[in-house]
Amino acid sequence: MLAREHIDNLSALLGAGGLLTDRADMAGYEKGARYDSGRAAFVARPASVEAVSDVVGYCARHAIPLVPQSGNTGLVAGSTPDDSGTEGVLSLERLRSTFDLDVDNRSLRVDAGFRLSEINARLEPHGLFFPIDLGADPMAGGMVATNTGGARFLRFGDVRRNTLGLKVVLGDETGTIVDLGAGLRKDNTGVDWKQHFIGTSGAFGVVTECTFNLERLPQQTATAYLVPRAPEHVTALLNAMEEQLGTYLSAFEGMSGAAITRTLAHVEALRNPFPGGAVPDYVILAEVSRSWPRRESEQPLEAVLEEVLSEVWSHSDEPLADAFMGPPQEMWALRHALSEGVKSAGYVVGLDLSFARGGVMPFRARMSEMLAKEFPDVEVCDFGHVGDGGVHFNLVVQREADGSVDTARIDALRERVISMSVEQHGASFSAEHGLGRRNQHFYDRYTPHKLKSMAAQLKQAIAPGPLGSTRLG
Amino acid sequence: MLAREHIDNLSALLGAGGLLTDRADMAGYEKGARYDSGRAAFVARPASVEAVSDVVGYCARHAIPLVPQSGNTGLVAGSTPDDSGTEGVLSLERLRSTFDLDVDNRSLRVDAGFRLSEINARLEPHGLFFPIDLGADPMAGGMVATNTGGARFLRFGDVRRNTLGLKVVLGDETGTIVDLGAGLRKDNTGVDWKQHFIGTSGAFGVVTECTFNLERLPQQTATAYLVPRAPEHVTALLNAMEEQLGTYLSAFEGMSGAAITRTLAHVEALRNPFPGGAVPDYVILAEVSRSWPRRESEQPLEAVLEEVLSEVWSHSDEPLADAFMGPPQEMWALRHALSEGVKSAGYVVGLDLSFARGGVMPFRARMSEMLAKEFPDVEVCDFGHVGDGGVHFNLVVQREADGSVDTARIDALRERVISMSVEQHGASFSAEHGLGRRNQHFYDRYTPHKLKSMAAQLKQAIAPGPLGSTRLG
Repeated sequence: MLAREHIDNLSALLGAGGLLTDRADMAGYEKGARYDSGRAAFVARPASVEAVSDVVGYCARHAIPLVPQSGNTGLVAGSTPDDSGTEGVLSLERLRSTFDLDVDNRSLRVDAGFRLSEINARLEPHGLFFPIDLGADPMAGGMVATNTGGARFLRFGDVRRNTLGLKVVLGDETGTIVDLGAGLRKDNTGVDWKQHFIGTSGAFGVVTECTFNLERLPQQTATAYLVPRAPEHVTALLNAMEEQLGTYLSAFEGMSGAAITRTLAHVEALRNPFPGGAVPDYVILAEVSRSWPRRESEQPLEAVLEEVLSEVWSHSDEPLADAFMGPPQEMWALRHALSEGVKSAGYVVGLDLSFARGGVMPFRARMSEMLAKEFPDVEVCDFGHVGDGGVHFNLVVQREADGSVDTARIDALRERVISMSVEQHGASFSAEHGLGRRNQHFYDRYTPHKLKSMAAQLKQAIAPGPLGSTRLG
Repeated sequence: MLAREHIDNLSALLGAGGLLTDRADMAGYEKGARYDSGRAAFVARPASVEAVSDVVGYCARHAIPLVPQSGNTGLVAGSTPDDSGTEGVLSLERLRSTFDLDVDNRSLRVDAGFRLSEINARLEPHGLFFPIDLGADPMAGGMVATNTGGARFLRFGDVRRNTLGLKVVLGDETGTIVDLGAGLRKDNTGVDWKQHFIGTSGAFGVVTECTFNLERLPQQTATAYLVPRAPEHVTALLNAMEEQLGTYLSAFEGMSGAAITRTLAHVEALRNPFPGGAVPDYVILAEVSRSWPRRESEQPLEAVLEEVLSEVWSHSDEPLADAFMGPPQEMWALRHALSEGVKSAGYVVGLDLSFARGGVMPFRARMSEMLAKEFPDVEVCDFGHVGDGGVHFNLVVQREADGSVDTARIDALRERVISMSVEQHGASFSAEHGLGRRNQHFYDRYTPHKLKSMAAQLKQAIAPGPLGSTRLG
């Protein structure tokens, strides 16, 4: 329990409605999007960067642990308190004043508390969008803290690539406010400090304002499901598509037959798009898009994609067994439903891995062998961004009749797969979900000692306060 | 003069040919590409990362200042010694073993001593290239240390965006070797340490090996010179072109009429491409490119560009006064000759500035006014990457009859323009040339005290040795 004095002081700093301490009021901030839940000492809801600074500085001076939280949609317990009841939550949801669009610079300066969907709804009339395409609907601050990727990474990159500037409150005893980057696309005048706050889950400071690069909205889109001759031909298929389309390819998403089958069975609104209903072993959702309305002299994008597919079809490697074109909305609906569909199949051990692009399918094959031997009841329902080496390697475990699962066995399964992927296949154990309590032990194990010691020194130097859910040192 | 003992020890560490101390042998390493020259205590030429580590560690232990140098093509005196004669040069030119191409991952792991031209020549048979397009021909290590941009930044970004991994020797007493990133496109497992060594001129460590993203080579290219109705319409023209072409636009380069005129007069091989030879006030070189051979069903890219230009022509803002299409090679030849052409006109004060994209032309107009009043003899011969807010703001000052220039007046001119650009127009004083002795005083002046103090602490923590030409703290 936090001393009454601190509660009173924080409350005075934050003003009316700024501090929550009632258990019922705090419940929504204590539970994460999927797995995690804890117990907060308080929830601070500053409405300005100055108030963020006040709270962060106060907590640093009094060694009160503080976990920044914005949209709270993360999957690694990075934005919720642990169950000690000693950590405060710093919610950014009231930081919602700044929304400065610079059309000429194709950039947006936006407070941390705006959601991705809001940002894109407000940009739509200008024909622009923030090109991070996610199933979840995070807020700006959290997208930066986790460096999210998503389904159009292949064309537009991650949050890091699309961040032109940040305003940050450092985790020090004065809650120092620093402006890092003013929205310039080119600026090589020393350490690019904003990089420190991207993907580090708030360990060094609290992102209160972001300047993002914007892209023009797609106006033409064509999609196809591609069936590789076998999963090991996926990389050849990707290469063949890129040979014909280059950077014009905007998505190349992998979907396992198992994930598709589970999803079609669970989500009634979806139509089985495969001839005779026979779901292939592995399917690619490929997308091509253009950001202008079709000119009369231009072939429709569907015709372009059809022609490309016929060229890929006759490729010397013969990577393509079958292909179906269809309306983008319907094709993406299946892709976006996979996460929900897989969850319907049992308890999901979700792993967010990435590899060199050619490494995804060999890993997948190797895992199938291992699992068949060591965990024969586990079903692999993977999908993900194979065009950039990412895979959401979801392992479905059947629950007991009473709904329970054998947690020790699940830990052993997660441990086995992550250790093989990192140690033998050069994987990242967190491709795009960032760091939180849920994968802290993998960080501890796989980060070289020297880099942990550097992170500890850096933290001590710029943000010694107990900020964030992750221990980097 | 460095103590004989150190010379002997370094020589022993480096083996035969590894250490140069003869004045004649060192001359080439003491002089930069354009402005700078100094005096080296020695030139160390390690041929392996281990030897780099030995030299860096030895020099850190004995407080011997060391300036890393690779291609030595920079323009800010970042890779040459000062004139004290106490700094050693650490040349990376013998680091030339690793050249590992991963076609499936579209990535290249390459030692720091390979030149850009060599890298791209060896990649060409694979249809790939490292998409940094420069007038100079730097080595890999220096491109990272300065985070160069170039003429295709608009499509492909800078070196930072295209760096997937680095091997670095830290500037500490043991010359610690760290591997940062293994070529994964997505990896969010803590501090992205490689960012520290990009654009920081070797202050924290020596980049010995780089893993770069590759792109597919353009197979179709179409170019046009666009004449805006007036320079202030350039941004509207950029927006109109992007509306029609989106990210398919691969270059949007500005060229002042003065720079063009000087260049056409100087470079005989160039043909004046403008009707009647009348050079417009300002010209844009726009390029569209595709990375596949033209399919039969596709319009030639020239026809696409022509159609887009006619649409832009009828744009409601009427930003376009005239347009000329022509062969890409010839059109780029003029653009690439500008730097040489401007130099022929007199003494060049070259400033590498960047702005929010809409800010370039207002700055330019404001400077013309100021210069007409305060420096009426100065000719503005600017050109550059206006599509991403960059401008090489070159000011030509006439030399005296004996070839000399009034250096005090030149310093005053540089000071006036940079202070106005940074303080009143939010510019970066180094868009893509990085940091070196030549712009150190602007770094000292314009970097907030807090960020300098953070840089000093970071340096003390991870690289306390006297490494690099730049003082960040």
